[in-house]
Amino acid sequence: MPSHTQQSAVTVLGLGPMGRALAGAFLDAGLAVTVWNRTPGRDLELAGRGASSAPSPEAAVAASPLTVLCVVNYDAADAIVRRDAVAAALKGRTLVNLSADTPGRARDTAAWAAGHGVGYLDGAIMTPTGTIGTPAAVFLHSGPADLYDEHRPVLEALGGAHTHLGSDIGRAASYDIALLDLFWTAAAGYAHALAVARAEGVTARELAPFAKNIAAILPAVIESGVAEVETGRFSGEGNPMTSAASSMRHIVQAAEAHGIDSGVMRAAEGLVRRAIGRGHGADGFLRVTDLLNPVSANG
Amino acid sequence: MPSHTQQSAVTVLGLGPMGRALAGAFLDAGLAVTVWNRTPGRDLELAGRGASSAPSPEAAVAASPLTVLCVVNYDAADAIVRRDAVAAALKGRTLVNLSADTPGRARDTAAWAAGHGVGYLDGAIMTPTGTIGTPAAVFLHSGPADLYDEHRPVLEALGGAHTHLGSDIGRAASYDIALLDLFWTAAAGYAHALAVARAEGVTARELAPFAKNIAAILPAVIESGVAEVETGRFSGEGNPMTSAASSMRHIVQAAEAHGIDSGVMRAAEGLVRRAIGRGHGADGFLRVTDLLNPVSANG
Repeated sequence: MPSHTQQSAVTVLGLGPMGRALAGAFLDAGLAVTVWNRTPGRDLELAGRGASSAPSPEAAVAASPLTVLCVVNYDAADAIVRRDAVAAALKGRTLVNLSADTPGRARDTAAWAAGHGVGYLDGAIMTPTGTIGTPAAVFLHSGPADLYDEHRPVLEALGGAHTHLGSDIGRAASYDIALLDLFWTAAAGYAHALAVARAEGVTARELAPFAKNIAAILPAVIESGVAEVETGRFSGEGNPMTSAASSMRHIVQAAEAHGIDSGVMRAAEGLVRRAIGRGHGADGFLRVTDLLNPVSANG
Repeated sequence: MPSHTQQSAVTVLGLGPMGRALAGAFLDAGLAVTVWNRTPGRDLELAGRGASSAPSPEAAVAASPLTVLCVVNYDAADAIVRRDAVAAALKGRTLVNLSADTPGRARDTAAWAAGHGVGYLDGAIMTPTGTIGTPAAVFLHSGPADLYDEHRPVLEALGGAHTHLGSDIGRAASYDIALLDLFWTAAAGYAHALAVARAEGVTARELAPFAKNIAAILPAVIESGVAEVETGRFSGEGNPMTSAASSMRHIVQAAEAHGIDSGVMRAAEGLVRRAIGRGHGADGFLRVTDLLNPVSANG
């Protein structure tokens, strides 16, 4: 087994479930991999598969031209890389940060990296750990195109689809935030729907085929939303905002009559009621997008 | 053109966009149709296509063995049918209420109908007006099976898929509420995602293909949710509640940094934080279903 002083193809910092999946996929692709984790012991299975365990993050990053960092957020990322020894070891090398956080934190880290002579790419992993190393994985990347091109072969060893979104370093996090926004809000709606259904004696299994039909119409909603946002014309024909408000009120009433917290739907209804109050009752629901963030403020 | 005193196959009360679509589909199917609407003039196009315009709701319901009612909610429905003259005219006939409201209101209306010798079916229309009369329409029905079977041929003239959910009269409204809960919450998530993306310089068109990928994984989330709710085991392996909480916090931070209201996501994050506070941090997100409505409370 190679020691940590030997040059590896890639270093992985952070060995939570996702970090271990990344390191494992690199190993499966035949790459020499160095790993490190703050909490000891997480590297044992990977070491058994041929990874080099580094005794410190600075030793780990010194072992490879490319370091992939995947921890819970940028506070955790900073705690690892923003120390003198690690920054010195990273100088002239490239750091790919696949931890999740806000676009602002990504830009802040890029500024730190530039100030320390560290090549920096920011990325987001859009699929669960089980997809890593398979065609189902989805990775988003942002940062300097030449740096991305240089490290692309190693990154693509992780399998799946890799998209470089552009040189704005915050772009991967922006997509990540927006897409998780859709995902987790929809998941919250499903959880609430299950709770209301249960209270009414409808089982999750009974609801499922109809719920899947609802999910199946979302791509068309997404596509029509693109045209509406682009043109600024939100057609409420056949399904005006007032109708959405009425549905939302029924949902809140039915749920709360069973003692079910409906804060999520109450907040959504509030958006719609305010849009109606501003004179948009005949518009389509997605008109609330403009209420949330007026075009003129960013035009 | 037949007068309203002539026997029609079906009467449609309420000529908003959905009521007009229903009456139009009945006409297209070759049925004799009587229509009435509180606000005059909405019947003109339908009358031109052969519908009989009744001068009053009691005359309208007297013209057909079956009356389909579709208005904005049950307050509006009650204002039409719960008058002596209309109740008397409905006696011995059947009313199908396709208006949307809560399961409780459906049960209340069924009790009223039983007390007045009116056959009563309650239904929900799950698809937009444009689908009515096409294979894409989805109708849910509940109430006495024999009554449904009797009127099924006329109802099926509306096109699409018709499902009788059972004799519990509140069942169609229960499904409707739960499914619209999923739909409108997801739509609120999409609107918020669009607003956050816009603030970060990501257009709706750029986001769309990735957003559709998110929508595409929802059926699997729905299906795994069924197994989790049935077994009471919510696996957080690879995607624990703590990870959802972290993502939600990033979304709120990123959105609010741009001045974007995030009440929906704040409410969703609140659910997750409370679930973590109760010791479910290692569980999967849908464990919040139990927090919203404990199984024990419903046997």
